[in-house]
Amino acid sequence: MLDALFKPRSVAVIGASNKEFSIGNSVVTNLQTYGYTGAIYPINPSSPEILGLKAYPNLSEVPGPVDLAHIILPSKLVPQAMIECGEKGVKAVIINSAGFKEMGDEGAKLQQEFMANARKYGVRVFGPNCQGIINTDPDLKAYCNFTNFLPKPGAISVVALSGGVGALIMQGLVDIGVGVRIYASNGNACDVSISEIVRYLGNDPQTKVIIVYTEGFADPGEFLQVAAEVAARKPILAMKAGRTEQGAKAASSHTGSLAGVDIATELIFEKTGILSFADEGDLIRAAMAFASQPIPRGKRVGIITNTGGPAVIATDVLVAAGLEVPVLSGESIAKLRASLLPQAAVENPVDVVATAGPAHFRAALDIMNDDDGVDAIFMNFVTPSFSDTQAIAREIVAVSLQGKKPIVCNFMTDIRQERFQVTQRILLDGGVPCYAYPSDAARALGALARYGRIQSHPVSRPEVFADIDAAKARTIVAVAKKAGRAILSAQEVYGILEAYRIPVAPWTVVETVAEAVAAADKLGYPLVVKVDCEAIDHKSDMGGVVIGLQDAEALRATVNDMQARLAHLALHSHLGKLRFFLQKFLPGGQELIVGASVARGLGHMMMFGIGGIHVEVLKDVVFKLAPLTRYEAESMLGSIKSAALLDGVRGKPPVFKQGLVNVIQRLSMLLADLPMIQEMDLNPIMAFEDSVFVVDGRIRI
Amino acid sequence: MLDALFKPRSVAVIGASNKEFSIGNSVVTNLQTYGYTGAIYPINPSSPEILGLKAYPNLSEVPGPVDLAHIILPSKLVPQAMIECGEKGVKAVIINSAGFKEMGDEGAKLQQEFMANARKYGVRVFGPNCQGIINTDPDLKAYCNFTNFLPKPGAISVVALSGGVGALIMQGLVDIGVGVRIYASNGNACDVSISEIVRYLGNDPQTKVIIVYTEGFADPGEFLQVAAEVAARKPILAMKAGRTEQGAKAASSHTGSLAGVDIATELIFEKTGILSFADEGDLIRAAMAFASQPIPRGKRVGIITNTGGPAVIATDVLVAAGLEVPVLSGESIAKLRASLLPQAAVENPVDVVATAGPAHFRAALDIMNDDDGVDAIFMNFVTPSFSDTQAIAREIVAVSLQGKKPIVCNFMTDIRQERFQVTQRILLDGGVPCYAYPSDAARALGALARYGRIQSHPVSRPEVFADIDAAKARTIVAVAKKAGRAILSAQEVYGILEAYRIPVAPWTVVETVAEAVAAADKLGYPLVVKVDCEAIDHKSDMGGVVIGLQDAEALRATVNDMQARLAHLALHSHLGKLRFFLQKFLPGGQELIVGASVARGLGHMMMFGIGGIHVEVLKDVVFKLAPLTRYEAESMLGSIKSAALLDGVRGKPPVFKQGLVNVIQRLSMLLADLPMIQEMDLNPIMAFEDSVFVVDGRIRI
Repeated sequence: MLDALFKPRSVAVIGASNKEFSIGNSVVTNLQTYGYTGAIYPINPSSPEILGLKAYPNLSEVPGPVDLAHIILPSKLVPQAMIECGEKGVKAVIINSAGFKEMGDEGAKLQQEFMANARKYGVRVFGPNCQGIINTDPDLKAYCNFTNFLPKPGAISVVALSGGVGALIMQGLVDIGVGVRIYASNGNACDVSISEIVRYLGNDPQTKVIIVYTEGFADPGEFLQVAAEVAARKPILAMKAGRTEQGAKAASSHTGSLAGVDIATELIFEKTGILSFADEGDLIRAAMAFASQPIPRGKRVGIITNTGGPAVIATDVLVAAGLEVPVLSGESIAKLRASLLPQAAVENPVDVVATAGPAHFRAALDIMNDDDGVDAIFMNFVTPSFSDTQAIAREIVAVSLQGKKPIVCNFMTDIRQERFQVTQRILLDGGVPCYAYPSDAARALGALARYGRIQSHPVSRPEVFADIDAAKARTIVAVAKKAGRAILSAQEVYGILEAYRIPVAPWTVVETVAEAVAAADKLGYPLVVKVDCEAIDHKSDMGGVVIGLQDAEALRATVNDMQARLAHLALHSHLGKLRFFLQKFLPGGQELIVGASVARGLGHMMMFGIGGIHVEVLKDVVFKLAPLTRYEAESMLGSIKSAALLDGVRGKPPVFKQGLVNVIQRLSMLLADLPMIQEMDLNPIMAFEDSVFVVDGRIRI
Repeated sequence: MLDALFKPRSVAVIGASNKEFSIGNSVVTNLQTYGYTGAIYPINPSSPEILGLKAYPNLSEVPGPVDLAHIILPSKLVPQAMIECGEKGVKAVIINSAGFKEMGDEGAKLQQEFMANARKYGVRVFGPNCQGIINTDPDLKAYCNFTNFLPKPGAISVVALSGGVGALIMQGLVDIGVGVRIYASNGNACDVSISEIVRYLGNDPQTKVIIVYTEGFADPGEFLQVAAEVAARKPILAMKAGRTEQGAKAASSHTGSLAGVDIATELIFEKTGILSFADEGDLIRAAMAFASQPIPRGKRVGIITNTGGPAVIATDVLVAAGLEVPVLSGESIAKLRASLLPQAAVENPVDVVATAGPAHFRAALDIMNDDDGVDAIFMNFVTPSFSDTQAIAREIVAVSLQGKKPIVCNFMTDIRQERFQVTQRILLDGGVPCYAYPSDAARALGALARYGRIQSHPVSRPEVFADIDAAKARTIVAVAKKAGRAILSAQEVYGILEAYRIPVAPWTVVETVAEAVAAADKLGYPLVVKVDCEAIDHKSDMGGVVIGLQDAEALRATVNDMQARLAHLALHSHLGKLRFFLQKFLPGGQELIVGASVARGLGHMMMFGIGGIHVEVLKDVVFKLAPLTRYEAESMLGSIKSAALLDGVRGKPPVFKQGLVNVIQRLSMLLADLPMIQEMDLNPIMAFEDSVFVVDGRIRI
């Protein structure tokens, strides 16, 4: 579908130029220099020849078919050029020119105009205000881009809206010596979207790893869907910038988008199994490891080093990344002792010492590779002047090529010396990811392991509960909506929860003291009483909530008092009078909160936390995108910092986790069935050793 | 004092060799290649000439005086060589050879032996098992080291016990293009210590920044003292590896030291104002900024960029580092609008756009430099092919050289191109720190700002309270010690606290029911009763604590019950019978904990936290080294994650912070006066709106 864009058999450059350093010149030069194997058609009204190629005054005079055209013209001329592309039968267009939506209303109008023309002719548009694409395929070598990275072919593909960050990533990959497969930076992205490109790369067999840089998505739902498909097949490494409020502001100022501090993007990454990075260097270095190394089956790392200190640093970072540096098996230790120099340290880290030769390295690598207690190998390789470092590098490569366990290498060398350049080339050409710092190497291995953990999560569909009454819940919402009420009454909230069999503390609604006393006899004391009236917003502050009523006398006094103080406020409510919500008071237990709110284009975002100070002061909450699988609901419980409280502390029993997971899953289904719910706040939910009850809830539609 | 080591006028190399790649060859080669200006005396019993220099069969035949000698001999020969050095009057020796303490008992004995000889002659010893030193001073150029970095002269000095990490740091500094002043890697460090070297560098006017890498200190107290002196004068950037348990194990295996997961090292860094790093790359990159840039006066950063996305990334990282990217003044915005291209974004980040020339960059820099609302400048400088990047670089340098505000630069370029290499050289030679990633540059600026914050902390001495009775406290401890008791009784603990005027909940100790009732009348109800007997360890578990006693009847019943159940356990206590500790019960209030324990070589480490789940489950505690200044005591309160609880939440009033700070300072003085206290645990301390009381305490001597 996007083959014309990414695998063009011919490229026209509208606005090709002989003027050095102009974009119209760079694009043609790059196609030539990089060795594009298709036809290049420079279009220029005044020059018959551009950079040694025959140029055409306009597109219609190009003799052959044109798959892809660059448009490099002042923005005002782009709508007309699009018509000419359409008439020529061009399939895809890269608009490098700026001056569109990013420049305000006038530019936005031009963008609308050329898009209307493109749609008319079925031309796909990449950009505008963009760099373009690169396809390093040796049979194609399509460098349709005005930058100048000239990367070697590889397995990493890169997608970045921002040309600046795209350049940063490409430069980073080139600098660390790793190859690229496809690069795409689509600027304003008015047609071909990041999601579409990711889907294309997902289907590209030569792409082993996808790097995505984003500052937010125009259509998050589309991306969620694509990412779920693609991330299940190959690793996607992503970075979302604009994570802080000021960062988001900086992002919106340069893209003209409405990006805010959305946690939703991170939640999409998490839900779909995309590996998220907060540091662009870490992302680039991790991609290098993904491009050539297998995913570790576990978290146990064997370290081989020929100098002490850096292995200590690596150990710290590996452990901080959730990995382990375990003691090796007795058998491995014995074999190491027999194979290495006498001064070698045969614990893990294994220090082969600086004077170790290729055979010592190979022995250590083989022993690690054969030890079932080791899942990955961390090499710390310093190049002493007296070592045959090239032979050592060849041994590392040989073991790496077996592909049994991932290997990363902290390669400490003086790269100014030619013999060490050769050593590094042996490692890199052999697919051994090399890093300049032990922490960098350790974090790259940590990323491989993190991906392994994600891949090991059980995949399932959200549970569907058959015992629910969706129609009843829908009716409750419809009635409220018809009445023009956005906030549901307590009775309505509990009605909806009960329709989804979500346990609520026993309750009833009454209008008079007599009804209250009669109902209380059935519910049993102690009781909570709340006024139930949408006109009274802050019930607690208004003295509209009294807890712990022990008997009928107290209940009577409370209801009478509320009537006297608050009845006048209810005159303009939809009932015109107060009602009283009576509920069984459940002391003890652990106070919890579950909430939900609509996330633009993504359904609902759910929140879980422990009530009281944990939410209010410590902000110890976890968010996930609904609908939730059982695994996701369970992992919400484990993800909060104070998760240990759920297991019972200071004499409290543990809470009924399975009941809580069930409640969360039922709420998730409720939200999926009732997308009109804008906001839901169940606070508190009281959890006991063998039961869970919603005690108070609020729903806004 | 260490001048002979760091500024040797002549160097002998005992074990100099013509054998390529040997250490004895590398050291002589390095001295020659680097251009050492002093005399070089190779010592070799069989070769009359080494690398073109006249060699001597032994040290005594060297014609001139020898400041410094390398010993590069098998370990067994080192003690004798040390005698020869002594007799020759050598002032300092670098022992590059290994085979000493790091190799076990036999090596340790050799180490003892040569040290005895060195002390006899007053020779200072650097190493053994070490790389050596480098002094880049252009007038000296002493490369007394077998590595091969050949750094350019600069303002950063480096101290690292570990040669491997020392090499890593040197390589990193050379790779990013920044100069070095003095380098020292002292291996086993059996004589000249890290602390001594840091003191020397503190007194070296050419050293502007000191980098310290450590895996723990042999004498932490010595380092604390030196660091406090030196860090007050110039920035010390440090990294402690072995931060995790596994990392510490890795460290101890390669150094033979007893390093554990000591938080004490980090506390020394904090107390003395050393900037601590967890990532060696971040440390190296920060050092580059410290070497040439001033410390920002505040946290407001102005960003100038010629491409959008990387500025977004930088903003995120700057904000995460505690900095701000504020809106510029109206005046600055107007000036920017008048000076920059029409497409430029004049908010902060200021996007001068890719087509900006030197004058646009200069205008933006000048405006930022003049804006009182900006404390530091972040440059994001990408090198478009059409730009005069060298002229732009010269403008950045010109503004940087004014030294008004710190500038860091994310320099995004294709360094394979010669013209961009020149651009980078202009920046680096002009003292503009350049980084390959915006996050790296932002963290380096963050480190400058962090140092600025540390420097702005008020400096004071710990408060001395005149109203205390140290003699009384000392007597209590002495009595317990004489009786052979390590755990003090409640009466003793409260006695000590009261001697330091630390408020405790009213209490008394009784032996009979009658005494209890009489005492209770004075204390007032409700009351807490605890058995007071060192033979009963887990009082609560044994039913030895009852709280909330409301009247004499309840008190009588409780004391009788405890007598009946527990008296037999007290038969072997020092009193031979039970006593009862009565205390006024203080409900409500905020439960707090203050603790202390001895830190090897450092006096006491104090701990503060909020009681209950905050300490037990959330591990929300803060540590500091005593003695504490008022500022340090105050900052303990603010450093815990749940600090907001102290301000009152959910209807609770704020706690009496000044009272709490006073208690902590008095405890600090108590600990300084009573160094024999091994451990102290005041748990809980109850804090109210206008009072603070210790409710329970435990002291081990």
